[in-house]
Amino acid sequence: MDFSSKLLENAVNEVSRLPGIGKRTALRLVLHLLKQPAENTGYLAEALTQLRNEVKSCQKCHNISDTVLCDICNNPNRNAEIVCVVEDIRDVMAIENTAQFKGLYHVLGGKISPIEGVGPQDLEIESLVEKVKSGEVKELIFALSSTMEGDTTNFYIYKQIEGYEVVTSTIARGISVGDELEYADEVTLGRSILNRIPFEQSLKQ
Amino acid sequence: MDFSSKLLENAVNEVSRLPGIGKRTALRLVLHLLKQPAENTGYLAEALTQLRNEVKSCQKCHNISDTVLCDICNNPNRNAEIVCVVEDIRDVMAIENTAQFKGLYHVLGGKISPIEGVGPQDLEIESLVEKVKSGEVKELIFALSSTMEGDTTNFYIYKQIEGYEVVTSTIARGISVGDELEYADEVTLGRSILNRIPFEQSLKQ
Ligand SMILES: [Zn+2]
Ligand SMILES: [Zn+2]
Repeated sequence: MDFSSKLLENAVNEVSRLPGIGKRTALRLVLHLLKQPAENTGYLAEALTQLRNEVKSCQKCHNISDTVLCDICNNPNRNAEIVCVVEDIRDVMAIENTAQFKGLYHVLGGKISPIEGVGPQDLEIESLVEKVKSGEVKELIFALSSTMEGDTTNFYIYKQIEGYEVVTSTIARGISVGDELEYADEVTLGRSILNRIPFEQSLKQ
Repeated sequence: MDFSSKLLENAVNEVSRLPGIGKRTALRLVLHLLKQPAENTGYLAEALTQLRNEVKSCQKCHNISDTVLCDICNNPNRNAEIVCVVEDIRDVMAIENTAQFKGLYHVLGGKISPIEGVGPQDLEIESLVEKVKSGEVKELIFALSSTMEGDTTNFYIYKQIEGYEVVTSTIARGISVGDELEYADEVTLGRSILNRIPFEQSLKQ
C-alpha cells in the first residue's frame, strides 16, 4: 500500500497489528475515525491506554478486575467452596450471563497445548491446586472447551489434586463437542452448569 | 454483556463504535491488547491520536497529507493539466498503485446520494469546477464507482463545466459494474485508466 501520509501509514500499521484486522480493514477503520469528531479518537485512545495501564488481575481468581479482588470474589453471597475452572475471562462473562452459577471462578489463562508451547507452568494451575490442598474448595467444576487441549488440562489438574477431598465435575456436554464456550447460547450453557457430571464419569464417555 | 471491569467495559464500548466491529470482536481485540506488552497499546493509541490531530487535507486535491500540499501535487514531474476525479483517498491509493497515471487527483470526499443526504455542496465539487473554469485543467478523468451515485456525480460535474474547454473521460469499464474501485486488481484498474473513453461516449453505452 502506497500512503500519501506517514501519519496515516503509521496508524494503519498499528491497527493492522490487531488479530484478524488486515491492512484494508485497518485503513477503513482509520478513515472512519478521520470523518468523526476528533474527540471520538481521543476517547478510544484513552479508553485503551487506561485499560492497559490500570486494569488488574483478581488476586484470587485471576479474572480481569479494577480492584485487587474482583466483584465476584468480593461478593459475600457467592459460595466460595465451589469453584468453576475456566480458560478465559470471556468464559466467566458467558457463565455469569446465565445467572445459574453462584460459586466462584478460577481463570487459568488458557489451556495446556504442547503444539502452541503452553505448559502447565504457563497457566494458573498451581494456585488452583493450592486452593484445593488448603481445603478451602470443596467442589471443582471444569468448564473448559471440550477440545483435546481442554481435556488434557482437565486431566492434568485432576491428577494434581488426586487424593484431596474435593468433588470434581465437568459441565454437561449440552454444548456441541469442539464448540467454543463463549458462543454457546445462554440456555444451553446454563443447563450444562446445572447438569454437571462427576469428572470420573466424564472420562468413561 | 456483563463486565467484571469498568475499564474493560469502557474500552470494549469505544472499540465497538468502529464500523463493522461488534461487541464480541471488540472484546477479542481488547483482550489481545491486554496480553501484549503495554507499549503496544501505547503505540496504537498514540498513532491514532497523532493522525487525528495532525493530519491535513491537501489544499489542492483534498488527498490526505502531512503537509499543506500532498506529495503528488508537490511533484513537478506530474502533469497538472490532467486531473483524475475520485471519491475517496483509497481510490488515489489504488490508482497510484498501478503506476499508470501521471496527472493529479481531485478527491471529492464521496458521491452525490440523495438517500444518504449527500448533496453537491457536501463534496469538493465547487473547487473542482473552479479549477476547470480557471483553465488550469485541460482534461478530467472521472474515476468514480460505476454505481448510480457515481454516475449521478459524474453527470452533475459534467453539466457544471459544460462549455469550458476541457476534455472529459471516464475510466474504461474493465472493472465489473457495481464493483468498488479499491478492490479492483492492479492490471484491470491500470488498463481502465489507459483506455479511458470520452465522457459523452460513456453516456451512450
Ligand atoms: Zn476474583
Ligand atoms: Zn494534493
